[in-house]
Amino acid sequence: MKRIYMDHAATTPVRKEALKAMLPYFTEKYGNASSLHSFGVEAATALDKARETIARLIGASPEEIVFTSSGTEADNLAIKGFALANQERGNHIITSAIEHHAVLNACKWLEERGFRVTYLPVDKDGLVSVADVRSAITPKTILISIMHANNEIGTIQPIEDIGRVAREKGIAFHSDAVQTFGHIPVNVNNLRVDMLSLSAHKLYGPKGVGALYVRKGIDIVPLFHGGPHEKGRRAGTENVAGIVGFATAASLAVKEMPKESRRLTKLRDKIIKSILKAGEDDDRMRGVRLNGHPTRRVPNNVNFSFQGAEGESIVLRLNEKGIAASTGSACSSHELKASHVLLALGIGEEMAHGSLRITLGKDNTEKDVNDLIRILPDIIFSLREISATAKKTHHAENDNNEESE
Amino acid sequence: MKRIYMDHAATTPVRKEALKAMLPYFTEKYGNASSLHSFGVEAATALDKARETIARLIGASPEEIVFTSSGTEADNLAIKGFALANQERGNHIITSAIEHHAVLNACKWLEERGFRVTYLPVDKDGLVSVADVRSAITPKTILISIMHANNEIGTIQPIEDIGRVAREKGIAFHSDAVQTFGHIPVNVNNLRVDMLSLSAHKLYGPKGVGALYVRKGIDIVPLFHGGPHEKGRRAGTENVAGIVGFATAASLAVKEMPKESRRLTKLRDKIIKSILKAGEDDDRMRGVRLNGHPTRRVPNNVNFSFQGAEGESIVLRLNEKGIAASTGSACSSHELKASHVLLALGIGEEMAHGSLRITLGKDNTEKDVNDLIRILPDIIFSLREISATAKKTHHAENDNNEESE
Repeated sequence: MKRIYMDHAATTPVRKEALKAMLPYFTEKYGNASSLHSFGVEAATALDKARETIARLIGASPEEIVFTSSGTEADNLAIKGFALANQERGNHIITSAIEHHAVLNACKWLEERGFRVTYLPVDKDGLVSVADVRSAITPKTILISIMHANNEIGTIQPIEDIGRVAREKGIAFHSDAVQTFGHIPVNVNNLRVDMLSLSAHKLYGPKGVGALYVRKGIDIVPLFHGGPHEKGRRAGTENVAGIVGFATAASLAVKEMPKESRRLTKLRDKIIKSILKAGEDDDRMRGVRLNGHPTRRVPNNVNFSFQGAEGESIVLRLNEKGIAASTGSACSSHELKASHVLLALGIGEEMAHGSLRITLGKDNTEKDVNDLIRILPDIIFSLREISATAKKTHHAENDNNEESE
Repeated sequence: MKRIYMDHAATTPVRKEALKAMLPYFTEKYGNASSLHSFGVEAATALDKARETIARLIGASPEEIVFTSSGTEADNLAIKGFALANQERGNHIITSAIEHHAVLNACKWLEERGFRVTYLPVDKDGLVSVADVRSAITPKTILISIMHANNEIGTIQPIEDIGRVAREKGIAFHSDAVQTFGHIPVNVNNLRVDMLSLSAHKLYGPKGVGALYVRKGIDIVPLFHGGPHEKGRRAGTENVAGIVGFATAASLAVKEMPKESRRLTKLRDKIIKSILKAGEDDDRMRGVRLNGHPTRRVPNNVNFSFQGAEGESIVLRLNEKGIAASTGSACSSHELKASHVLLALGIGEEMAHGSLRITLGKDNTEKDVNDLIRILPDIIFSLREISATAKKTHHAENDNNEESE
């Protein structure tokens, strides 16, 4: 059976150009970038070049890039690193209720250590209000962290406008751009951010590599103390091959973006339209909701909630048919709690539990999309039947219990 | 010119078996290990297998292994993670003056945050005294961290005996085994450690991968908050390919260890004997010192100090001749300060500046060693001549200055 992968927000394959660029750094040019000899120089040169590439792609300077091992590390370094380095200036942080757990749980840890955090609500489409950001600011606010686009529902936040408020008030502004870099334009000056988290494996680079952009003048405490790597902001021998793969993949993603984002948007909207239409035309498909903003969303993201059909069951049934998708984020997929993102939309526990995330990628074709559109409704019907039967049985049992007592 | 790599303590090439094992996880089995679908299951299965392998190799249980992005991360997670999780029990940490900067600088950061750290001295061979450890213990001591073998001078510490003291006193014991795992036997029960830092790229695995062993019952605060990965001890999408490469390389290193460590010990001792003998036989080679213990040292490490010859210059001259070696550790090679490890041996600033570290590896042959033994003395002679001339000129200039004033 041909497998169709539609879970690109969870991770992507490493594209062949990136892998090809990485290979020499495993077996031939394997030096430690800190070494003085020719092997070291080769590695350091590759690292410099990769740093210049990533910097150029987001409108930054090379010395503003700190390579990390993941987007999660970048988020932690930004949030905890900035808070701990600037706590004498204030102890208040503003973020949103729908941030990635890397941001939310870093904030929760800071709350245990004397910080106060405001978690802003979002509207029904998942948008943070710029007015809410402004009115949450206190004289003690030192940091605002709002993600560029949400990993579950794909909603793109008004980062430029939040950045304007942050700059006006002299507050540092961090954004998690893990889901947008390589997918929509990301420029640190246009977005007016002071820190920006990036990840390689969401744009056809390898897992285990990310970066944090840190604007000149912004002070952070490192998470890893040790050697003087990354200008003292992140100790540890650099993952040269991985970083080279990241830069190669990012470069290609940005280059292909104009054409590819149009193609994906078309496929995305075809899925959205077809499934919502099925919900109107076919009684058995009623109770379907598009989660996330209808237009302000990343080109590859579709997220539905289906009443009376559990997200995990939908994913497993799709998997049996050879289609890989997800419910909520990959990180939380083995948890039983409903997604904090979907709950924040105000759609209720049942709908939050019945969510399906489809995230398209560069190898997905129109045929893949047609397969999904053909297969999905039958899965929903079947799961709703099971669910209805289960409820009936449950009620019957309860009735029996009541009688026998 | 054929290049001879003799800097294996800095990093190693990825061995072909490890790379081969990694490749499918870049391009085919690329799922996120947290995903529910078949791509996710493939990744999770590989991760489980790698975790079992690493655990088995060090005598641990799989759930005691936390994969990290480096030895530096593992050291930071152990030291800061344990200290922050256990600070209500006490605020005193014991370590040594010759630890890796990852341990030393993590300790220094804790000192700024209310902890007290004892940095034990070492003897002329770089050995920590078990009696010193014992007498440094106070009722407030919560953690002892002593490295298994030193990265610069190769001295192997009496970890078993220190572990016995720690256990007797009910104090947690961490050891950095980055330089020993895959090179000499490493078993968490024999060593009596509660935490152990490992790294892949020192044993022919990829850069960007490490692990921390955390004995059951030992509580640590994560460095990365976020998703529930690594049982809540380290958030972030797992670097599946890298971890698979680590397990493959480690497995082969441990398997080949008995034979390979004998072979390397022989080559190591040939270098040591030849250079020390040259120091006795040839006037121009006098003033050479072997740094580190003559016998209690890792099989691949040679470290000399040469009076009147700067370490960095020796490395650059060797590099011109196609031999890659180092002075001090790779992490510190662009710093001008003398090595903290060599200074701790009490050999003085000049000798500490004149150090050369040769670390052999699996592809080094007897011929490589003979080349080094042939080339090195001439480099030392030549550098000493330059240094002597420079001193004379400097004195003459000073004399002139004095006269003119």
